[in-house]
Amino acid sequence: MLRTVGIIGGGQLARMMIVPAIELGFEIKVLAEAEQSPAKLAATVGDYSDLQTVKEFANTVDVITFDHEHVPLEILEALIADGVNVQPSPKALLFAQNKLAMRKRLAELNVPIPDWAEVSSAAEIDSFIKEHEGEAVLKTATGGYDGKGVRIIRSAGEATDWLNAGKPLLIEEKVNFVRELAQLSARNSSGQWLAWHVVQTIQRAGVCAEVHSPAANADSEAAAKIAEVIATGFGVTGVLAVELFETADGKLLVNELAMRPHNSGHFTIEGSVTSQFEQHLRAVLDLPLGSTEGTSAFAVMLNLLGPETANTFAEHFENAWVLENTSHIHLYGKEYRAGRKMGHITALSSDSLQDARDQALATYNALLA
Amino acid sequence: MLRTVGIIGGGQLARMMIVPAIELGFEIKVLAEAEQSPAKLAATVGDYSDLQTVKEFANTVDVITFDHEHVPLEILEALIADGVNVQPSPKALLFAQNKLAMRKRLAELNVPIPDWAEVSSAAEIDSFIKEHEGEAVLKTATGGYDGKGVRIIRSAGEATDWLNAGKPLLIEEKVNFVRELAQLSARNSSGQWLAWHVVQTIQRAGVCAEVHSPAANADSEAAAKIAEVIATGFGVTGVLAVELFETADGKLLVNELAMRPHNSGHFTIEGSVTSQFEQHLRAVLDLPLGSTEGTSAFAVMLNLLGPETANTFAEHFENAWVLENTSHIHLYGKEYRAGRKMGHITALSSDSLQDARDQALATYNALLA
Repeated sequence: MLRTVGIIGGGQLARMMIVPAIELGFEIKVLAEAEQSPAKLAATVGDYSDLQTVKEFANTVDVITFDHEHVPLEILEALIADGVNVQPSPKALLFAQNKLAMRKRLAELNVPIPDWAEVSSAAEIDSFIKEHEGEAVLKTATGGYDGKGVRIIRSAGEATDWLNAGKPLLIEEKVNFVRELAQLSARNSSGQWLAWHVVQTIQRAGVCAEVHSPAANADSEAAAKIAEVIATGFGVTGVLAVELFETADGKLLVNELAMRPHNSGHFTIEGSVTSQFEQHLRAVLDLPLGSTEGTSAFAVMLNLLGPETANTFAEHFENAWVLENTSHIHLYGKEYRAGRKMGHITALSSDSLQDARDQALATYNALLA
Repeated sequence: MLRTVGIIGGGQLARMMIVPAIELGFEIKVLAEAEQSPAKLAATVGDYSDLQTVKEFANTVDVITFDHEHVPLEILEALIADGVNVQPSPKALLFAQNKLAMRKRLAELNVPIPDWAEVSSAAEIDSFIKEHEGEAVLKTATGGYDGKGVRIIRSAGEATDWLNAGKPLLIEEKVNFVRELAQLSARNSSGQWLAWHVVQTIQRAGVCAEVHSPAANADSEAAAKIAEVIATGFGVTGVLAVELFETADGKLLVNELAMRPHNSGHFTIEGSVTSQFEQHLRAVLDLPLGSTEGTSAFAVMLNLLGPETANTFAEHFENAWVLENTSHIHLYGKEYRAGRKMGHITALSSDSLQDARDQALATYNALLA
C-alpha cells in the first residue's frame, strides 16, 4: 500500500521531508516554483496559484500538504470540493495565513496573547500607541515572514504606505519579553497530539539564528498546553509551531504560529527519536505519531545564513570535518545570497546546552574560514 | 562548490545514499537498471555494462561510486583512461568481484583466512575435501552474493555443472565457526581510515537476518586490525565491510568482503554519529571522515524480508506505530516478493542488546500482522 504525499512548495522544508519519505518508503512529489529548488529531487515545476496546475498535481498524490503558507485558500477550497485530501485543511490554514483571523481565534480560545487591535486608520494606530507607552508593533494581516510585514512604530506616520495601500493591519503591544520560546507539536487528522519539549529561539535581525533544546527553566507545561489548545481549537493537522514570548515573570504569550515543519524544529532531525519532518508526514497521512523523546539531553541548532562574502559553506567542509565534534551540517542546495537561510548545524550533548553550542559554533566558524 | 556523486546501481544502498546527499547538500545521480528502482528519485535508467552509457553518465558527475560490484572492470578501466574519478578504483574492486584474486591477496597480506585452494577439476576438489574431513565450501570466483555461487559439498559430483561450465572456482574449508561477525570501516582516498565497532551478524537461509551492535565479547581490536590491513593493502576507498567467522577459541577468519555500504551497517543510520552512507560519500569525495561513535550503547537491526504471504509492510504501519518503542522502520520501495530484502528495522537501547532486539522484534511482528 504505497502512500504518496504531495508537497506544495519546493523550499528546504520540502527538501527535508524527502528524507523520511525515502526512509519510510512513502512516495513524495513536490510542486516547486522553479527548476533549481532545494526540493528538486522530487519536484515538478508549476505555479501554486494556478488552480489547474494544482489540481493536476493533486490528482497524482494521496494527500496535499505544504512547505509554506502562501497557497491561496480559494485554490485549496476548490481542491476540497473535488474530494482532494488537504492537510492541514484550509479552515485551519486560514489562521496561519491571516494574523487578524489568528488573533481573533486565539482570543476566543483564551490563549494568552499580547494586547492587540485591528486598525485601518492613522487615528486608530496613534490611539493604540498612546495607550501602550508610545511604541507598538504593526503587522500586515497577510504576507509576513522572517521579519517581513512587521514594523515597530512610534506613530502612524511610519505606516503611511501600508495604510495607503489599504492593507488589512493589526497592531500589538510591544511585549517586553526576556526571551523567545517555540513550542513544536504535531496532530494527526484523527486527533492524536504530541509535543516536543519547548525550545528557546534566538533571533538576529528578525531571523532565527539559534535554537536551544530544551529551553532552560521554561514553563514547559504551560507551553505545551497552549500548543494543544491551538492544535485542537484550530483543527491543525501536521506540525504546529507556536512562537512564544516569555516575560520577566515567566508568563508566555503567543507571538506567531506556523502549520508546517518549522525552523525551531530542525534540531529534531538528530535530536529526537522522531524528526518533525517524519512526524509531519505521519500526521498528514493520519498515521500514529512517533516518539518525541530526545536522543540526547541537549541540542543546539545554528542557522547557516549567507555571510557577507560569497560562501556556500560546502567549500569549507574540510575545515569543519577535521574538528573532533559531533555537529551535523545541513545544506539546502541554494545559491549563495547574503543573509539567506542556506543550511543549519545541529550539535547534541549529553552534558549541557553550552557544550552543544560550543560544538555547533566551532563548526559554524570553520565553515566561514 | 557543488559536488556531484554518481552511483552505479539503483538498489537500496543507492537509495540510502541519497539521504546524506540531501542533508549535506551534495548533488547525487544514480544510474539504475530499471524505471522502478529503489533509488528512482535520483535515477536515470541505463545499462551499466554498456561503456557509452556509463561514459555519458560519468561526464555529469565528479566521482563514480557503486551500489553493487557487478560493473565490468574493463568499463571502469576505460573510464579511468578518460580521466574519470572512480572510487573505489577498479584495482581495489577486483578483490571484491573476484574471490580468487581476493583470497590470493589476503594470503599475501597475512590476513587470517580459511584454508583454500583454486580448483579446476573433480580430482582437485575431491582431494581438498578428503583433506578437510569430507566436506568443503565450493565457490564460483565471480557472481556470488547472498548465498548464490556458494555450495557446501561432500564430493566433486555436486559440482559437475560448474566444472562443465568452466567457471573459475575456489574451494575452502568449512569453518566450524561459533558465530559470524562483520567489521565495517571506511577509508578516504587520502588514506584516512576509521572503523565502527565490530558487529555480530545472524544469517538465515544464507541471507543476513539480524545485526547486533556491538558484538558482545568479541576481539574488536583484532577485527579492526584485519579491516585496516585490508583497506590499506587493497587500496579501498569508501566503506569496506569484512565478514568474519569467529571460531570456538575466539579467532577471526575473513569470510567475504564488500567495498560499499553493507547490510551489516544499516544500523549506523540511527546508531552512529556518522552513518555508513554518509561516510561512503565523504570517503569517495576524499573529505575527512565523520565520527563512528555510537549514538546509543546498543543497536539491533532486523532485515524485513518479504514474508510468505504478500505484504509490503507499509500497510501495517498503524500496528507498528501504536507500539511504545523507538524502532525505526526503513522500506526500500520495492515490489513484494517472498524472501526479498524489502526493508529493515533498527532499534536502539542504552540498556542492552536484548532490549534493542525486543523492540525491533515487536515492530517486526506488528508489521507482519
